[in-house]
Amino acid sequence: MTGESAAVSPGSSPQSVAADVLRKLRSTSATLAVAESCTGGWLGKVITSIPGASVSFWGGVIAYDNEAKLKLLSVSPGALTADGAVSERTAREMALGVVEVSGATWGVAITGLAGPDGGTANKPVGTVYVAISGPRDRSRTYHLSGDRRMIRRQAVDRALELLDEALGTQ
Amino acid sequence: MTGESAAVSPGSSPQSVAADVLRKLRSTSATLAVAESCTGGWLGKVITSIPGASVSFWGGVIAYDNEAKLKLLSVSPGALTADGAVSERTAREMALGVVEVSGATWGVAITGLAGPDGGTANKPVGTVYVAISGPRDRSRTYHLSGDRRMIRRQAVDRALELLDEALGTQ
Repeated sequence: MTGESAAVSPGSSPQSVAADVLRKLRSTSATLAVAESCTGGWLGKVITSIPGASVSFWGGVIAYDNEAKLKLLSVSPGALTADGAVSERTAREMALGVVEVSGATWGVAITGLAGPDGGTANKPVGTVYVAISGPRDRSRTYHLSGDRRMIRRQAVDRALELLDEALGTQ
Repeated sequence: MTGESAAVSPGSSPQSVAADVLRKLRSTSATLAVAESCTGGWLGKVITSIPGASVSFWGGVIAYDNEAKLKLLSVSPGALTADGAVSERTAREMALGVVEVSGATWGVAITGLAGPDGGTANKPVGTVYVAISGPRDRSRTYHLSGDRRMIRRQAVDRALELLDEALGTQ
């Protein structure tokens, strides 16, 4: 492997990336918490599909409604009104919020528009923001295509890959 | 349909039960929050696979670690130490806790042993507790069989069916 972004080969299954993430977390005695909006728990589901996930996985928040983002993740009202629930700022605040509430080493957040409704010219359906909070922060914007299921699935895949990249080569 | 428990025919897909649950919630302007331990977000994932889920679905807590149960769901330390994380009492407290933190009309909680490790003579792998908190409380114990994936999937199915039953014929 020549670099962080090569840590996961393209086409790896979400389960294999999740297993790699958990292995890296375990090897550094680090913990993980998730904050999910449009994926509604799918990321947590994939992570906990791996036996022994409990060693490193704290849990997290399914922040589907904006009130959940405000109340459980301390997302600022300004992020939601000025930037919107689907924005890089909200994703970053969700990731930071879940680290703060959980005390986990790493937090990963997903917010996006899975459709079929809700898209705008500026933010069409398929716009997804992922943010990582921890020893190395990351945030990235994705423009995903396909139906609701495909967009949500790709959002989970991208979040796991970004987290795996942030965790580095261990 | 002759009764509440006949609201869902055996073999219905989780998605179709989730759609039925969301239709009933919408028709009564009720909202739902989830608290998931062993399923790790799978229940939320299935509910949010239905377009328009945001009308009724608040979100919830992935309470995988006991600390998440204590901190985000206000589960009592006594429930965890005396009865255990996998117990009817903990399931009930998780359901009540997610209703309290969310203000949702209904809360549904799942805690169980998905394996492959962690089973005991009293509580073998496959023991799952589901609790509903809301206008009509429910709690039930399941003894599920199969591998980790099958146990988790059945736990999600049973939780949706119990919720559908609690919501009644609407």
